[in-house]
Amino acid sequence: MTADGRGAAGDWRAEFEALAAGARRALEEVLPGPDVPPARIHEAMRYSALAGGKLLRPVLVMAAARCVGGPEAVTPAVRRAAAAVELVHTYSLIHDDLPAMDDDAMRRGQPANHVVFGEAMAILAGDALLTLAFEVLAGLPRWGADPAVALAVAEELARAAGTAGLIGGQVDDLDAVQGAPLDLARLQSIHRRKTGALFRACVRMGARLAGAGEGELEALTAYATAFGEAFQIVDDILDVTGDEAELGKPVGSDARRGKVTVPGLVGLERARRLAAEATERAVASLDPLGDRAALLAWLARSLLERRR
Amino acid sequence: MTADGRGAAGDWRAEFEALAAGARRALEEVLPGPDVPPARIHEAMRYSALAGGKLLRPVLVMAAARCVGGPEAVTPAVRRAAAAVELVHTYSLIHDDLPAMDDDAMRRGQPANHVVFGEAMAILAGDALLTLAFEVLAGLPRWGADPAVALAVAEELARAAGTAGLIGGQVDDLDAVQGAPLDLARLQSIHRRKTGALFRACVRMGARLAGAGEGELEALTAYATAFGEAFQIVDDILDVTGDEAELGKPVGSDARRGKVTVPGLVGLERARRLAAEATERAVASLDPLGDRAALLAWLARSLLERRR
Repeated sequence: MTADGRGAAGDWRAEFEALAAGARRALEEVLPGPDVPPARIHEAMRYSALAGGKLLRPVLVMAAARCVGGPEAVTPAVRRAAAAVELVHTYSLIHDDLPAMDDDAMRRGQPANHVVFGEAMAILAGDALLTLAFEVLAGLPRWGADPAVALAVAEELARAAGTAGLIGGQVDDLDAVQGAPLDLARLQSIHRRKTGALFRACVRMGARLAGAGEGELEALTAYATAFGEAFQIVDDILDVTGDEAELGKPVGSDARRGKVTVPGLVGLERARRLAAEATERAVASLDPLGDRAALLAWLARSLLERRR
Repeated sequence: MTADGRGAAGDWRAEFEALAAGARRALEEVLPGPDVPPARIHEAMRYSALAGGKLLRPVLVMAAARCVGGPEAVTPAVRRAAAAVELVHTYSLIHDDLPAMDDDAMRRGQPANHVVFGEAMAILAGDALLTLAFEVLAGLPRWGADPAVALAVAEELARAAGTAGLIGGQVDDLDAVQGAPLDLARLQSIHRRKTGALFRACVRMGARLAGAGEGELEALTAYATAFGEAFQIVDDILDVTGDEAELGKPVGSDARRGKVTVPGLVGLERARRLAAEATERAVASLDPLGDRAALLAWLARSLLERRR
C-alpha cells in the first residue's frame, strides 16, 4: 500500500470530516423533524441519532463507495445508505443501554435515551430507528439506485443486524456475563458478530452501490473484518484507560459489570499488540485495491490511536 | 357484492384455513431453527411467532394477491411477504407486552415472551423479528418477485410499521393513558395507525406482488382501513365481554390500565353498531373488484363475530 501523493494525514482527516458532514446531513434529511407528530418519539430518535457520534460507520460506507468508484461515486443514494447504517447503529445503542440490558446511564457524553425519555419511549425510539433504516433503503431508487442493488444493500444490512450479526453478538454477550468463562477465541467470535458484521455490511453496501465486482467486495470484506477486530479491542482498552470526558461514558463499566474484555483476558500490553496486528491485517487486505484505498487505510490506522 | 357460487361460509373458512396453513409453513421456513446458534433467541422468536396467532394479517396479504391475480397469484414470494408481516406483528406484541410498556403477562394463551425468556431476551427477540422481516423481503427476488416490486413492498411495510403507523399509534396510546381525556375521533385516529396501517400494508403488499393496478390498490386500501377500524372496536369489545380462555389473555386489562376504549367511551351497544357499520363499509369498498373479492368480504364479516 503506497501513499497517493495527497496522503498527508491532515488531508485524510479533512476528507473524513467532509464525509462525516455528508452523513450528518443525510441523517437530518431522513429523520422526521422534531415537530412532526408524534413529536416526542421523533425528538427521542433525533436525540440519540444526532448526538455527535463519530459517524464512523457511515463514513465507511461512503469511503468504500469512493474507493470503488472515485469521489463521484459518493452519490445521494450512498449517503442515504450510510445514514441508514447509522440509524441501525443508534437503535442498537439505545436498546443496549436499557435497564434490562447493559443498564448504562450515559452515552456519547449525554444521558442515555431511556434516562431522558423513559424506558417505553426508548424501546419505541429504537424500534423506529431500525424500521426507518429499511424505509430509507427501500426508497433508494428514488435517489438513483438500481432496485436490485438497493435490495442487495438492504439484505446486507438486515443480515448484519440480525441474529447472525449484531443481535446474535449481543445475545452471546449477555450470556457471557452470566455464563461460563470466556477465552480469547470465543470473545473474538462475539466481537466478529457484535461489531464486525456491521463494519462488513458498511463497506459492502457502499461498494455495491458503486458497482463493485466480486474481487473488490472480497478485499473490502477482509479489511472490515480485521478493522472491526481492532476497533473492538481498542474499545475494550479505552474502557480501562480512557478519559471519561473524552469517551462520553464512565470508564471501567465493563469490569464493573463483570464483562469479559480483551485486556481483561490477556493484559493491556498484549491487547494493544493484538489491536495493532489486526489493524495491519486490515491495511494489508486493501493491497489489491491499490492507491484508491488510501483513505480506508488511513481510517484503520487512525482509529488505532483514537481516544473515544 | 354478490356471492360467487362457491360462497358458502364453510368454503371460505376452509380457504382461510388453507391460506393460514401456508403462512404458517412460510413462517417455519423463514424463522431460524431452534437449534441454530445463538439458540436461545431463535427459541424466543419461534415461541411468539409460532404461538398459534390467528394469522389474520398474512392471510390478508395472500387473500389480496388472490383477489387481484387468482389462486395462482399466491406464490412463494407472496407467502414469504405474508410471513414477514406476521414477524412484524409478533415483534410489536412482544415489545408492547414488556413491563416498561403495557406490562402484560399473558399473550395468545401463553405467558408473554419476557415472562419466559426475560426482558433482555424479549427486547432482542422483538428486534430480531423486525430485522428478519426486512431480510425476508429483501430476498423476495430469489422467489420470483421483481426487485422493484419487492422494494415497493418493503417500503409499504416499513412505513406501516414506523412512526406514521404502528409505532406512532403505540406512542399516542401510551400518551393517552397518561394524558388528557380522549374523544372517539382521537381514539379512532390512534387505531387507524396502531391497527389500520398494518392492515393496509397487508393488502397493498399482496396486491402489488400480484401486479395490481392503481384502482385495485385504492379499493383494497379503503377495505383495509374500514376493516381495521371494525377489528379494533371488536378487540376493545372482547376485552370487556370476552372469554379469558378463548382470548388467551386476561379480560378487562384495558380498563384496569386506564386505557380508553371504544365501548368505554360510547357504551357496548353503540360500539357494536360502529363495528358493524365499519364492516359494511369495508365490504362496500370491495364493490369495484366484484366476485373476486368474496373471500375478503367474508373475512371482514366473519371477524365481526370473532371470539378471540
